[in-house]
Amino acid sequence: MGTQRVYNFSAGPSMLPLEVLERAGAEITNYQGSGMSVMEMSHRSKVFQKIFDGTKANFIRLFHVPDNYKVLFLQGGASSQFSMVPLNLIGRTGKADYAVTGNFANVAYQEAKKYGEISLAADSGDKNHTYIPQQGQLKLDPQASYFYYCANNTIYGTEWQYVPDTGNVPLVCDMSSNFLSRPVDVSKYGVIFGGAQKNLAPAGLTIAIVREDLAGRELPYTPLMMSYKTMIDKDSMYNTPPCWCIYMLGLVLEWLDDQGGVEGMEKIKHSKAQLLYSVLDDSRLFTCAAEKGSRSDMNVTFRSVSEEMDAKFVKEAAEAGFTNLKGHRSVGGMRASIYNAMPVEGVEKLADFIRAFDKAN
Amino acid sequence: MGTQRVYNFSAGPSMLPLEVLERAGAEITNYQGSGMSVMEMSHRSKVFQKIFDGTKANFIRLFHVPDNYKVLFLQGGASSQFSMVPLNLIGRTGKADYAVTGNFANVAYQEAKKYGEISLAADSGDKNHTYIPQQGQLKLDPQASYFYYCANNTIYGTEWQYVPDTGNVPLVCDMSSNFLSRPVDVSKYGVIFGGAQKNLAPAGLTIAIVREDLAGRELPYTPLMMSYKTMIDKDSMYNTPPCWCIYMLGLVLEWLDDQGGVEGMEKIKHSKAQLLYSVLDDSRLFTCAAEKGSRSDMNVTFRSVSEEMDAKFVKEAAEAGFTNLKGHRSVGGMRASIYNAMPVEGVEKLADFIRAFDKAN
Repeated sequence: MGTQRVYNFSAGPSMLPLEVLERAGAEITNYQGSGMSVMEMSHRSKVFQKIFDGTKANFIRLFHVPDNYKVLFLQGGASSQFSMVPLNLIGRTGKADYAVTGNFANVAYQEAKKYGEISLAADSGDKNHTYIPQQGQLKLDPQASYFYYCANNTIYGTEWQYVPDTGNVPLVCDMSSNFLSRPVDVSKYGVIFGGAQKNLAPAGLTIAIVREDLAGRELPYTPLMMSYKTMIDKDSMYNTPPCWCIYMLGLVLEWLDDQGGVEGMEKIKHSKAQLLYSVLDDSRLFTCAAEKGSRSDMNVTFRSVSEEMDAKFVKEAAEAGFTNLKGHRSVGGMRASIYNAMPVEGVEKLADFIRAFDKAN
Repeated sequence: MGTQRVYNFSAGPSMLPLEVLERAGAEITNYQGSGMSVMEMSHRSKVFQKIFDGTKANFIRLFHVPDNYKVLFLQGGASSQFSMVPLNLIGRTGKADYAVTGNFANVAYQEAKKYGEISLAADSGDKNHTYIPQQGQLKLDPQASYFYYCANNTIYGTEWQYVPDTGNVPLVCDMSSNFLSRPVDVSKYGVIFGGAQKNLAPAGLTIAIVREDLAGRELPYTPLMMSYKTMIDKDSMYNTPPCWCIYMLGLVLEWLDDQGGVEGMEKIKHSKAQLLYSVLDDSRLFTCAAEKGSRSDMNVTFRSVSEEMDAKFVKEAAEAGFTNLKGHRSVGGMRASIYNAMPVEGVEKLADFIRAFDKAN
């Protein structure tokens, strides 16, 4: 280590492109001749407004956000959205459907119960969340104000490979851990949200994409900062936004553009994941946690033959410059989080390391 | 401009110490041999935990926070606290007292009405918020769950120069714009909070200091991220905190320590403010907006003989490298925000500029 950068497989916060960090560092005391850091700028200044507008425009373009949606730059993480979604949307019928396919979906489900009548549309807990329910397994209520699911489950390494069909019930989706890793037909959704700290920017920024006609029906005790309508009306600047994170998102989006946008990224991230899954499937020591067909391209979860061997793997990997491969404490084993900014070579080298470890042990 | 840094008199976000920015820039791709940026670290990692713990310990030491208080690192700005305070504290009696001495105090007052019976303990709107009410002018309800005020009013340039005596009713104070500029007897307060983007760190971090016995009585529909108790129990890490802003706060606190802590800063900031007020009082063209005795040491508000002259002053000042001196649009005139990180020489040079402008016009 020392002067070397590591391949950081953290589940989040996680790697950012090196060229983005270098550019941010180069202009940290004086942004483009403004005489100040982005961290020092009034959020009402022309120079910051230009950063804000450019970042939002690039997000809309790259993620193909239709005109009847608003992109909001918020704070508080996805965990704040767990409250904000029901506070803003459940008023229509007082009911909502939730699919629980992992820890964060479950937290969202429990939180929503404070605000209305919540039904469990699916629950993969019967097999420790190792799979994603199929369309036919969803119990759908046509009277639900919305249907909620989490697109990618970081702890269990599963990812929805299809968009649920819920008829006229709007979809609400937590995309924290696979945002901008693949094209999404936004028009199928009511609200898409995600914390930025996995695929997009440093921790402290939450992005929400809201179909505009759904806003404005918040429950009466909704905190002012938790009203989508307030934030839409003020273009995310009801108060001071997390300016530095928005600037960093802007740099990451420029980098994403250079990778071919979300279409280019889809190919890259899928081949990265396929490489790891094939090495693991071919190994003697390792098994993947998630069922085929439900495997995540962002978080590859696996384990070896024993806890002792897992610990040996994690330790030797860290010594070789592959950090944060230990699985979440609730499931054990290993987890390689390979978000957008993880270079292909980082995955290739990890694949080589896994092969060598498999041979040597 | 170009390669020169400017003296940035923005009301917030605002200047950070140059040495802090330079240090952050130097380690932006590899923090102390960790092989990664602070922006890329898992918030559960040892390396980040050490940053977090050190920053919190320094905050507690420098601000003299007693043992029965918890320091929380939150998101959402002071505007989120406008909801969080009543959601967590009003349950005791259902009532609260608010002193309205400016815009943000008024927003907090309006927001609190969603959650209980709110009384106006004082309102300086009769003189356009140019003064701070005296102790004898406060209408106090001994049944109030808390008494709320805003320590410094950025738009109007006024600052409370005394701590209200409310008997057994806990004080709640928004210190966003004068945090850590002077020593505070924290033991007199129930909750102190502030956005970081004026005196402490980049926008995106909110600090709350909560007397621990007051937490745990939140209203039943309180969003999970808005419960002080939840955040106390998880040491601000219920979810991913704004890691970069916490790291930057840590660097700013080390710098503050070098200035002699809040005691040293009190002398520096007071002499900076006195210099500007004396030059303005001695001028032919300029008058200060706030009444003597209520003047803020953080935001010096003033105006000249006409709007045209104001505009000329702001324009010529910007050309001379003094930016963001235009007053808030709701009051007009000028405002020099001279937070902790504004160097003494920046204020001295502005004073010289004001003198020269006064003579020349």
